[in-house]
Amino acid sequence: MLGAIEAGGTKFVCAIATEDGTIIEKVQIPTEIPDTTIPKVLEFFQDQRISALGIGSFGPLDVHPDSETYGFITSTPKPGWINFPFVKTMKEKLQVPVAFDTDVNAAVWGEFHAGAGKNLNSCLYITVGTGIGAGAVAERKLIHGWSHPEMGHISLRRHSDDHFPGVCPYHRDCLEGLAAGPAIEKRWGQKGDALPVDHPAWEMEAHYLAQALMQYVLILSPEKIIMGGGVMKQRHLFPLIRSKVEQLAGNFLTLPAMDTFIVPPALKDDSGAMGAILMAQQINSGN
Amino acid sequence: MLGAIEAGGTKFVCAIATEDGTIIEKVQIPTEIPDTTIPKVLEFFQDQRISALGIGSFGPLDVHPDSETYGFITSTPKPGWINFPFVKTMKEKLQVPVAFDTDVNAAVWGEFHAGAGKNLNSCLYITVGTGIGAGAVAERKLIHGWSHPEMGHISLRRHSDDHFPGVCPYHRDCLEGLAAGPAIEKRWGQKGDALPVDHPAWEMEAHYLAQALMQYVLILSPEKIIMGGGVMKQRHLFPLIRSKVEQLAGNFLTLPAMDTFIVPPALKDDSGAMGAILMAQQINSGN
Ligand SMILES: Nc1ncnc2c1ncn2[C@@H]1O[C@H](COP(=O)(O)OP(=O)(O)O)[C@@H](O)[C@H]1O
Ligand SMILES: Nc1ncnc2c1ncn2[C@@H]1O[C@H](COP(=O)(O)OP(=O)(O)O)[C@@H](O)[C@H]1O
Ligand SMILES: [Zn+2]
Ligand SMILES: [Zn+2]
Repeated sequence: MLGAIEAGGTKFVCAIATEDGTIIEKVQIPTEIPDTTIPKVLEFFQDQRISALGIGSFGPLDVHPDSETYGFITSTPKPGWINFPFVKTMKEKLQVPVAFDTDVNAAVWGEFHAGAGKNLNSCLYITVGTGIGAGAVAERKLIHGWSHPEMGHISLRRHSDDHFPGVCPYHRDCLEGLAAGPAIEKRWGQKGDALPVDHPAWEMEAHYLAQALMQYVLILSPEKIIMGGGVMKQRHLFPLIRSKVEQLAGNFLTLPAMDTFIVPPALKDDSGAMGAILMAQQINSGN
Repeated sequence: MLGAIEAGGTKFVCAIATEDGTIIEKVQIPTEIPDTTIPKVLEFFQDQRISALGIGSFGPLDVHPDSETYGFITSTPKPGWINFPFVKTMKEKLQVPVAFDTDVNAAVWGEFHAGAGKNLNSCLYITVGTGIGAGAVAERKLIHGWSHPEMGHISLRRHSDDHFPGVCPYHRDCLEGLAAGPAIEKRWGQKGDALPVDHPAWEMEAHYLAQALMQYVLILSPEKIIMGGGVMKQRHLFPLIRSKVEQLAGNFLTLPAMDTFIVPPALKDDSGAMGAILMAQQINSGN
């Protein structure tokens, strides 16, 4: 058996899969402080005889194998989780090898191998939820370098009608600060799921997301872009974003047909859990 | 012997190296129309008995091995070069296998293997000259996807003192349109090399370049950024850019020490030629 944790800001999804990667059990545990959440997570796995564990976690994380704080959640504003030694804790308690990456890297890895990115060499997964983050595969590998990317915090040009200051605690009006769920809620006085389809919020949202996708395209040139997270449940955003990306590409860039280029996750809400399972599988197979 | 071409907007650099990658001969041929330039290039290589040729070229290019127009320069505004079948021409005339990529991908490949990026897993090379372009290595591989990146054309927030419209024929005020050599010349009425070190041009230039580097860092997280091209001969730009990048990183990102993070090319003007030689070498060794 293989284990997976998708550690999110609001909930932990814990999953068990067979060695071939089929998820057979899944539970959700609320993200509270580590002392409350982690014992429940451990309890779930302790009966299961897993041979390896994959973790996709909210960050920022230390993903540098040589670092002393490898496997830690580092500077998160989330109370209790700062400097939490995630890998070490799991390794000690479960006595299995652990693979560790960001939630969005796990999600793109899942979609790349078993979802919308199958049979490609590259793709990008972006989540638009409580925060915004993205992970990318290029040349069949997850992109890391000095650290993991922080694609949700790029700066953008403002929409001419937008005077909202933004809510990112670090940058105020970066992509996340202008376009994640909490920004929508604060700017318009109600949550995204309560705003009607013809509300100006959506044209503005598409403006920011299309602009961000264009930066990713210019820098990474992915073959496909997969958009997930709570806000993207608003399916009418997809045609809006596609048409704005097409407009931005103009006659400068030739892109794949938009309907196949910018798509929802094929694995629905399981992209991250599946990616973490695959990471666990790859430990076992020695990659 | 191995051959290399670094095809630039103003000149072709053609080089010959030994099988172990030591450059032993190098010539420059002006970039005119193909009918003028290519025969001179062929003449240089025809006497040399090369076993493989690497090309790093100005673009945009078709770098998709499966494409019918693989190896073409595609939509360049440069007269005569649109749809030039670069790989096909060289293969037919020289009867050797040919590796083909963008000028900046060749440059980053050269620096990664033999220059400032040696012993890393990732790095980025940006040239600031007649145009702006960048290539990146992540996980020891050159990044491609749907096509090659076009990092010089990202959009930026304007400097508050800048009312120059920009000169990019596609986007007007993208990075290249605001910060490449011709933009400096047009904005200030004289070429960059004539502007004194304390001219406000340089603070503005650093503002745009630092902003661009921060987008690259957030999206790719390279371990090192190598800055080349004519404009970067202004060495005083390095400290200006480093301090602005540090400011933008703030307490959100921890980056490597700036003096080692943002650096000039170790191979001086040979980054591209060396990268093209290595590409030729890799054909021979079957990678
Ligand atoms: N159907 C919806 N339409 C618009 N916004 C939504 C919808 N569902 C959730 N959201 C917003 O998305 C955010 C939650 O994102 P989600 O991806 O569900 O969780 P998380 O990012 O915490 O893992 C909240 O700000 C919420 O208001
Ligand atoms: N020392 C310098 N200082 C500032 N700008 C320079 C300098 N040398 C060249 N440039 C500018 O850089 C551009 C040429 O870039 P370069 O990298 O030399 O060639 P190319 O990009 O055509 O291969 C021109 O716009 C030129 O004005
Ligand atoms: Zn931010
Ligand atoms: Zn442009």
